[in-house]
Amino acid sequence: VVTDVASVKEEMVSLLDPMCRDAGCAFVGAHPIAGSEDTGAAAADATLFRDGRCILTPTAASDAKALAAVRALWEGVGMRVEQMDAGMHDRILARVSHAPHVVAYALAAAVGEARVGMHPVSSYAGSGLRDTTRIAGSSATLWRGIALANREGVLEALAEFETRLRLLTELIRRGDEAALEEAFAEARDYRKGLIRS
Amino acid sequence: VVTDVASVKEEMVSLLDPMCRDAGCAFVGAHPIAGSEDTGAAAADATLFRDGRCILTPTAASDAKALAAVRALWEGVGMRVEQMDAGMHDRILARVSHAPHVVAYALAAAVGEARVGMHPVSSYAGSGLRDTTRIAGSSATLWRGIALANREGVLEALAEFETRLRLLTELIRRGDEAALEEAFAEARDYRKGLIRS
Repeated sequence: VVTDVASVKEEMVSLLDPMCRDAGCAFVGAHPIAGSEDTGAAAADATLFRDGRCILTPTAASDAKALAAVRALWEGVGMRVEQMDAGMHDRILARVSHAPHVVAYALAAAVGEARVGMHPVSSYAGSGLRDTTRIAGSSATLWRGIALANREGVLEALAEFETRLRLLTELIRRGDEAALEEAFAEARDYRKGLIRS
Repeated sequence: VVTDVASVKEEMVSLLDPMCRDAGCAFVGAHPIAGSEDTGAAAADATLFRDGRCILTPTAASDAKALAAVRALWEGVGMRVEQMDAGMHDRILARVSHAPHVVAYALAAAVGEARVGMHPVSSYAGSGLRDTTRIAGSSATLWRGIALANREGVLEALAEFETRLRLLTELIRRGDEAALEEAFAEARDYRKGLIRS
């Protein structure tokens, strides 16, 4: 049984599924949604997977026993396992993870190079900006690969984000107090939904 | 001696400085850069100000004794105090705090309402998105006020962010591996600078 832990699944599955079958073994794609901006053995965390979500992306041709084995592996380290189509996985992850990484990189770069008069502004950052840009501390090589492997999904998700950002920008430009407060409040409710889930 | 703790200083100083002088007291504007997305007495934190930065925004006409008293107040709770022009304060804070809040609200709203097929995507959010959108949990009323009181600075900072985001988006669209990795790596270095400061 061959499996993987990649963050983008469609390309992986379409390459490895037939390749493994030809080699006489069974492939089941998996994405344990867990991790941090750190890399390497020193960043190991024994509780990393506990209560996280793991998505398996079997195809119609996947071997049932292999699927059960991979499911048991991830349930064994405490993850909640579910299955979905690889393409759907990629479109969802583009929105909840891949595009937000690009946003965080853009924000870190914009603040990092901003100057007001002679002052580099970055030394005035508070805990809010540190959290907002935490994932911009992630490996550039890894995330370049993810962004390009899921290019279509990432571009769609970035376009959705930009639409929202422009709406807020326009309300600020117009000085529309009521509509801006309503838009912020709606975003705040969505944010509270992210914590609960 | 009258002081304040508002996140936007130019409007505050230009209103309160002459008003206090007319009333026979001295005004010194202050912004202790500390806080969280929570509000109310239950969110009190005895260590909130320790090692944080506090910006005082005296004018040429400010009373020296009043300035010393306000400085002593904030140093007394452990803050590093510095002084600058109110307008410069507002342009810096637009970049490190106010615009990032708008970005976080936009991201929370975009993800919160995104669906892929029938699935709301928000239930697949990991810890990265939770951190990235934490400040979108902040009071909508407070941040509507801040965004509009510092409108010009916020719009400038959002434009700088959008320029960066479009650059990254274009590199993803073109599939330019080398340039994208370099841009992510540069952002990552800036992010590391934010942690150190």
